[in-house]
Amino acid sequence: MSVLLEFSMSPLGKGESVSKFVARSLDIIDRSGLPYRVNPMGTVIEGDWDEVFGVVRKCFERMKKDCPRISTSIKLDYRKGKGGRITAKVESLEKKLKRKLKV
Amino acid sequence: MSVLLEFSMSPLGKGESVSKFVARSLDIIDRSGLPYRVNPMGTVIEGDWDEVFGVVRKCFERMKKDCPRISTSIKLDYRKGKGGRITAKVESLEKKLKRKLKV
Amino acid sequence: MSVLLEFSMSPLGKGESVSKFVARSLDIIDRSGLPYRVNPMGTVIEGDWDEVFGVVRKCFERMKKDCPRISTSIKLDYRKGKGGRITAKVESLEKKLKRKLKV
Amino acid sequence: MSVLLEFSMSPLGKGESVSKFVARSLDIIDRSGLPYRVNPMGTVIEGDWDEVFGVVRKCFERMKKDCPRISTSIKLDYRKGKGGRITAKVESLEKKLKRKLKV
Repeated sequence: MSVLLEFSMSPLGKGESVSKFVARSLDIIDRSGLPYRVNPMGTVIEGDWDEVFGVVRKCFERMKKDCPRISTSIKLDYRKGKGGRITAKVESLEKKLKRKLKV
Repeated sequence: MSVLLEFSMSPLGKGESVSKFVARSLDIIDRSGLPYRVNPMGTVIEGDWDEVFGVVRKCFERMKKDCPRISTSIKLDYRKGKGGRITAKVESLEKKLKRKLKV
Repeated sequence: MSVLLEFSMSPLGKGESVSKFVARSLDIIDRSGLPYRVNPMGTVIEGDWDEVFGVVRKCFERMKKDCPRISTSIKLDYRKGKGGRITAKVESLEKKLKRKLKV
Repeated sequence: MSVLLEFSMSPLGKGESVSKFVARSLDIIDRSGLPYRVNPMGTVIEGDWDEVFGVVRKCFERMKKDCPRISTSIKLDYRKGKGGRITAKVESLEKKLKRKLKV
């Protein structure tokens, strides 16, 4: 049962620039072995429920060590019997539009 | 370690009205015993990470039984050492504004 | 053409507590005359596209005056020919469940 | 005053697959001339407030023509005096991590 999950997680009270903290999350995501794609507003990962939420939680536990307040937003897209959607969704749009999009 | 979690979960491909499916989720939330507040765009619950995500997952597993595609959005707010925020946050705003707000 | 819009808007780099800034937004929302409901994670307003986004923008312009970075999340629900949904959606859930929910 | 805006917009009541409708939005975004990046869960665009919300609205007006219910989620990130963040944010993470990420 594969799901697509996009999330972004930021500390409040750690100044205006939070990339130091976000980089740690990306390190966790990149080492998780799950398929992922970073974008300027968040990261999309694909996997089972336990896998993807396991990664989100690991990022949260790391951030919690030195951040007193954390704001997180998560979006999930589940579609029965469909895997590999981390690449297939955009490809399907490009096929419909008969041209390449900026990814 | 208490967090505030707001979520909304809807099936795609089950018609324009989805309240039948949302009502089942509210039934699960209401019976969970966790503090919650429903609003026109989602439900806020308060509890430990495992508690709040346990409720979200239960709603998902129920919806998955007869919905082939499910879209979910989740927002989390964690603040170290603070519980009871499901009521305290709005009260603090009312105190600052010196008047009641519509809740 | 009425829509339901929920939003939350927070400054980054203004410390861990942001209620001073959120209170200003609630003041703008409360004075806008649009139907609204505050919840612990955001505020839902109902109105035409221009009305609801006008309120969001006003809150943004106010916050921008003294906040160098602002994070905002917005959810929209449009349903053709349906107004008064700021109260009707929860009422419909309660009717389906045959009991009152915590609002 | 440049902002980053990510959004996703889907019809309810138009079946389980909504890519036909999403493709139309991508066509509008791609022709808008604004910098954008598509990802499996949404599209990020960069521009002034009026520009980015103008694109969102155009997509909404198009979808509204034949979709009776539309669900939209939007995230905004504003940072004073910073443009070009649609590429700069991920590059800054890669620099911090001293390796390339999957984009």
